[in-house]
Formats: sequence, C-alpha cells, structure tokens
Amino acid sequence: MPKSALNQVLSHLKAYRAQHLEEAKEFLRIPSISALSAHKGDVVRAAEWLKVRLEQAGFANARLEATRGNPVVVASSAIRLGKPTVLVYGHYDVQPVDPVESWHHGPFEPTVEKNILYARGASDDKGQVFMQLIAAEAWQTVAELPVNLKFLFEGEEEIGSVNLSEYIRDHQADLAADLAVISDTPMYDQGYPAVSYGLRGLAAMEIAVHGPYQDLHSGGFGGAVMNPAHALAHLIDSLHDATGRVSVAGFYDQVDDLTPEERDAFSRLPFDEEAYQNELGVPALFGEEGYSVLERTWARPTLEVNGMWSGFTGEGQKTIVPASAHAKLTCRLVPHQEPNDILQRIEAHLRMHLPPGVRLTINHTGGAPASITPLDHPAVKAAESAIESVYQTPASHIRMGGSIPVVVDFQQMLNMPTLLIGFALPNENFHAPNEHFHLENFYRGAETIATLWQKLGENHG
Amino acid sequence: MPKSALNQVLSHLKAYRAQHLEEAKEFLRIPSISALSAHKGDVVRAAEWLKVRLEQAGFANARLEATRGNPVVVASSAIRLGKPTVLVYGHYDVQPVDPVESWHHGPFEPTVEKNILYARGASDDKGQVFMQLIAAEAWQTVAELPVNLKFLFEGEEEIGSVNLSEYIRDHQADLAADLAVISDTPMYDQGYPAVSYGLRGLAAMEIAVHGPYQDLHSGGFGGAVMNPAHALAHLIDSLHDATGRVSVAGFYDQVDDLTPEERDAFSRLPFDEEAYQNELGVPALFGEEGYSVLERTWARPTLEVNGMWSGFTGEGQKTIVPASAHAKLTCRLVPHQEPNDILQRIEAHLRMHLPPGVRLTINHTGGAPASITPLDHPAVKAAESAIESVYQTPASHIRMGGSIPVVVDFQQMLNMPTLLIGFALPNENFHAPNEHFHLENFYRGAETIATLWQKLGENHG
Repeated sequence: MPKSALNQVLSHLKAYRAQHLEEAKEFLRIPSISALSAHKGDVVRAAEWLKVRLEQAGFANARLEATRGNPVVVASSAIRLGKPTVLVYGHYDVQPVDPVESWHHGPFEPTVEKNILYARGASDDKGQVFMQLIAAEAWQTVAELPVNLKFLFEGEEEIGSVNLSEYIRDHQADLAADLAVISDTPMYDQGYPAVSYGLRGLAAMEIAVHGPYQDLHSGGFGGAVMNPAHALAHLIDSLHDATGRVSVAGFYDQVDDLTPEERDAFSRLPFDEEAYQNELGVPALFGEEGYSVLERTWARPTLEVNGMWSGFTGEGQKTIVPASAHAKLTCRLVPHQEPNDILQRIEAHLRMHLPPGVRLTINHTGGAPASITPLDHPAVKAAESAIESVYQTPASHIRMGGSIPVVVDFQQMLNMPTLLIGFALPNENFHAPNEHFHLENFYRGAETIATLWQKLGENHG
Repeated sequence: MPKSALNQVLSHLKAYRAQHLEEAKEFLRIPSISALSAHKGDVVRAAEWLKVRLEQAGFANARLEATRGNPVVVASSAIRLGKPTVLVYGHYDVQPVDPVESWHHGPFEPTVEKNILYARGASDDKGQVFMQLIAAEAWQTVAELPVNLKFLFEGEEEIGSVNLSEYIRDHQADLAADLAVISDTPMYDQGYPAVSYGLRGLAAMEIAVHGPYQDLHSGGFGGAVMNPAHALAHLIDSLHDATGRVSVAGFYDQVDDLTPEERDAFSRLPFDEEAYQNELGVPALFGEEGYSVLERTWARPTLEVNGMWSGFTGEGQKTIVPASAHAKLTCRLVPHQEPNDILQRIEAHLRMHLPPGVRLTINHTGGAPASITPLDHPAVKAAESAIESVYQTPASHIRMGGSIPVVVDFQQMLNMPTLLIGFALPNENFHAPNEHFHLENFYRGAETIATLWQKLGENHG
C-alpha cells in the first residue's frame, strides 16, 4: 500500500507539471524584495499568496504570523503519533535585481528557455519553496502524509533573518519536530544531487591598535613612535604561517581529522582546479597544506581578515602616522570548535604578539558553532535513498563552507538536526542577474521530497 | 658706521613696537583662509594689504602677481652689486578655524593677553611675515639695506602651495638670489632660538595587492585563496625588523652617520622624553635602536604606512575574503638618499616578499630629496651671530623631520640654500584653536632679522 501511494503521488506530480510551472510563475511575478521598503506591500502579497496556496494544498491552518518585520507563513498537517515530524523551512523574499539592465528578461516576468526557468527567486528560494509545497500537496491529494509536516517560511532571509530567531524562541513548542529540512542550497553540480550534512560555524572579532592620541605629522614624529598600522600588520601576519596554517596555539586542538571515508567521498566529486582558479581570477590557489580545495572550504577551519583600515585612505597623500589601525576578523569553524574558546585563543595570541608602543583593544562580535549531521543518521539515509530512487544516480555527500544561522537556531533552540537537500545548481545566479532554475530539477526535486517523506515514514520507529 | 646704523635700526624697531603690534592686528583681522572659497575675497584683501604696507616700507615695486590660484605678493629693494641677495619667503594665507567654539577670543579678533598675541595666523605665518616686513622697513628708514632683498609671499601655503612651483619655474631670473630665508618654523623651545639647517626629504608610493576578481564569500571560499589583506600585512610587516630598523636592502647605504659634533649638539638640547610620550598619548616611545628621539626624527630616515584599507570597513560584519588590499607609504629621507632609488629598492623588496596567490601593483607617487645647509655655511654663521646678539644666548642648531616643498624648489630650480629662522614656539597652536605668538619673540625676531641682514652684508665678499 505505501509503495503504490508513493507511485500515485509521483504520477500526480508528473501529471500536474504544466500547471505547477504556471503557478510557480505566478508566485515569482510578485517582486517580494525584502531589502527595499518600496516593496513592503509585495512582500506581504507573496506571503498571502503562499498562505492561500497552502490552504489549497490541504493545509487549512495556514496563516501569516506577525514579527517585528515581515510576517512568517506557517502551516502544519495533522500531527499523528507514531510518525516523524519534519519542520520545513524556506523563504519567500528575494534579493534586489540591480543591475536590472543585465537581465535578458524582466526579473519578475518569469520566462522559460531551453527548459530553464528565469526569474528572481526561481532557485533562491521561491522555486524551491513551491517545490516543497507541491510535494506535500501531492501526498495530501492521494493519501495520508507519511510524516507530520510543519512549514515555516520567512520573508527576511535576504536581509539576514533579523526577526527569525526571536520568532523561533517564542514558538518552540509549535515548531518542535524530529528533523528540519531545508531546500535553499545547491546540489553539488548538474548530475550530482546531494545531501549536505555539515556547515561551518563562525567566530568574529574586531580589533583595534591604538597609538598616539591623534594622527601625527610623519615629518615631525615619524621614527619616534610605533606606527599602529605597522603593529596591526605584524599582528595579522602572525596569525598564519607561510603554509597557510593558522598559527594560534590550540586553534586545531578540537578539530576532527577528516575520516578516510570522507576524504575518499570528497575526492570522487569532480573538481576542476584550473577552472575554479580562472573563475576566481587568482594567479594561484592557496590554502592549508595537505588538503584539497573541497577539504579546505568544507571541513577545515579558517581565520580571515574581512576588512582592515588605518589612517588616510582618500585620494592623494597625507603624510601621517595614523592614530589607530583596525581589523575585522572571522573564523570559519568546524565541529567541536567552540566559538568563545577560539576567540579567547586568538585574543591571547594577539596580546602576546603585540609590538611595543601601542595598545590593543579586542571586541568579540559573535559566533555560532558548526553543525554536522552524522552520515549514518536515518534522515541522511532516507535522503540518499530518495535521491537515488528519483535521479537514478548515487547521492553525493557534501558539506558547505558557510554558516546558516537558522540551522544553528534549530540546533540550539529546538534541539533538532537539519537536513539540507536543495535542487538548485551552484551557478544558477542566486543574488545576480538572470537567476534561474533548471526545470528538470524543479520537477525531480518535488518528486525527491515526496519520496523522502515516504522513506522517513518507513524508517521511523 | 654700519654698527651705528644697526643700532639705529634696532632703536627704530623698539620705538615703534606699539604701532607695529596694531598694524599686525590689522593684518590678522583679515580672514585669509585659503581652504575655503567663501574667503577668496579675504585672501586677495590680505595680499593687497601686504602690498600697500610693503610700499609704505619703501618697496615701491610691491605688486600682486597672478597665478592659477591666489596671487603672490612680490617686492624687491634696489639690487646693488657687491651685496648678497636674499629671497625672503612667507605666506599670507591661514588655516581654517574649526572648531571655532574652542577659541577663547574670535580667531580674527586679535587679542593680547600676558604679552601673547592670540589670532589665527599670529605665528603661522602672518605674524612672522610682518616681522620680516618691519625689519626691512627699519633698515629702509634709517640706512641702506646691507643686503639686496626680494620678497615672495604666497597665498596658498595652507592648501599645499599648489601653484608656487609653477610660479618659481616661470620667474627664475626674477627670484635669483644667493640665499633664501624663511621665517615659518618654530624655534627649538622658549629660550632656545635656533637655526634650522636640515630638512628631511620624501618618497611616496601606493601599493595594492589584488586577489580574487571580486570580494568572495568567506564561507564558500575562505581557505582556498590567499587573502589580499593577509598578503598586504605580510608585506608591511616585512618592511621593518623588531628593533624598528627598515629591512629594505640598501635603504641606509647612502645615509651619513651623524657626526659626533652633531650628536653632541642634539644631546645638549633639553628633551623630556616622559613629557613627550605623555603628550603623544603612547604607552612607550619606539624607534630605531641606538638613536635618541631627536636623532630619529631629524636625522634618520623612516618608512611609514600613512594609510591602509581592505575589504569591509563599515559597521557590523561582512564575512568576505576581500578582493584587494591597499596601502599608502611614505619615507622621510635624509641627505644623499635619492627618492627614486629608495622607491625602487622598496619595490624590489615588496616583489621579493609577495606571498603566492596574489598580484602586486605599485605606483610611485612622488618624492623630494632632503636638504641640508652645512653648519659652516656663512649664512648659518651669520644667523647664529644675529641670534646671539639679540637673544644674548647661544643659537641652537636644529634640523626638522618634515619636508618643505618650497625649499626643494629653491634648491632645485633656483640653486640656492635655504636658512630657516623662525621665531614661533613649537606649541603655539598652528592649525589649531587659539593660535598665538609670544610678543617677545615677535619683537626680538624682527630685531634678529634686521641684525641678520647686517651680518650677511658684513660677511659678504
């Protein structure tokens, strides 16, 4: 019976492809740009559209809930004991469209060419949100959902999810689930549908080196005082050795070695270093010795200067010894590194390496731990199985170098792991002109999600 | 006869002190701020005032000459063979007065308190220009000037003398002289009237380290490329060793060691390192090992970062690997260091120390050699003698850490040495609120200048 229900679900999705595409276009025509206050009404319109469509999909309790900013759209199926509960997160807001003259079609005039759907939000994330919606609808139409579903769609992801943590904190019971699923990330590459099982964490600080009480004339005083820009350069240079390894004592103490299985899995993914280098425009790649690019960006911690400034930065020349020099630093962390511990180690390192004649102030500006879902977690297994069944190819296992704050909230406030299963491609121009989504992955993605609910239901209990 | 002429000149100056003070106030009431276009008319008014006053002083050929900017005021005495010719340079424009609320009296309402004259321009440089004028007038009134005098007063010194080089280049014959004299600098300290016989030169460059073609997301790419801010920090840190010495090969090759006499002369000048450190607000002084503060700032070359910038410098946090990193560098040079040679050595050093994975661009942005007038030059001897005769104290011999572009022009275009003999005190708030000038030094300065002309005339031929 479950098998045939899934087959009916997949048949339903295939039968309604044309209609689903038209509906996705309708959703994409709403210019829900959260960054621009002129589009405030459109953002709410997109939320309303989503709510109505969720009702049509059988989620009668779909509703907008107010936050200090744009509303969240929530809905849930009947919660039945004995089934796993899944919280599906996505966002209905989109990036601005500048430079609009670079678009081949209007960003809010969805257009299909060569089986690719072009529109702002096509892949990030309205297309994937709608994919989640139709997968659930197909189940609701044909049979009982194999999992309990809760939807949480926000309208502020593109402006930093500024009100989402507060919403989650205030609705922990409503949002409680066994697992979070997010479709807001790319697969590894075309033909490489993937489960993302790890994200790096973050630790941030701002440092300032203070010298004289004001900028000094370099003629009158140059040579008599430590130049804060020199001192800052010394500090920054002390943070890495020549091989690219972070020199801070204990920085790597909690870092797990990559397992042979993981290194092997990464190495099987196609990766063209030359193309990557050319795309970035650098004369050579550079990173921690002994690791591949994927290992460096997915599974090794880093310490980067994100910005620095000192003295006179305008046009021309001003012959001063600057009063101060500043830098913003962030680390990308891997599992088991604790953000505060890392910040304290960096602070100790900086204080130890401070040259004479200047003062150092350090401001810890935040952090979030890395997250990882074990490869043998049942949800990972279910996702693998769903991907393989729809795509007829083995699922890739990938990690991501960035951080997704909502995943940290789910982990810390709701105590649940997150499965990242996205169907966009890495080069589909999220945040850039001509954003697009391959329809093949839109349709197959919905089928994969529908299959995932089946697999999760089967595995449960 | 010359002796008694000088005595009459000095008596004249003493007799007219009250009147000279009132006239100086009149000059200072004109708000000749060159940086503010709203004061364009006042700048010209100050030039006109000076021209009229020079005529009254017996310089019938006083006139304004046009430049692309504010006019220069020029005048000259009859040129008699057998007498040395001296070009006196000064400026009649002043700095802006912000923050005006910090002034105890209106900046253009000259006020005397405790024998100190407060006004914008009192010491920098209108007061000293007027001092030069009355010294010459006293000679013209009493007897024939012992030297041929040429005056060159500009109205753009406070905005970088932007048109002066062109004027000098176009009027080389008119300005030809044996010696330039400038009263636009301080003495060493109250009670330490001084001859400045050396200025440091300058060499400037701007460098840029280029990495990826645009800022990269530090989550996606952090760890895979050299961060240009790290590379720039490495380069900057490589420029000095831990003792404060410049590490660039050959940087010190042309530098003369300080002579024992010079070191001895410097060491006899009172210098309170603790007060100096407190005034600058630094936790410790720092500079090239083995040299005193005066030696470091007057007679040793330096290399300073004047400004640097990279990546995100706004409020908050932006997790990027910056596309590029930039710095502005200037060296202060001492005699015999050639600016282009020094810039080329620095460039070679930077290229040699560039880390992998980034590109370096270097823009040489200018330079000027140091200048020094030998201590045994007759003009230095004459100035010493004039100071000692008026102040009844030995003249100090000082150098200055900065550069004065017009001195380089005089040296390079007019092939003449410059004597810097100023009567301001170092803490008389040039460029700051409550600028002032000790009247004692205003009066004695005029007497010293009048005496200097006598001594130069005596020594000549």
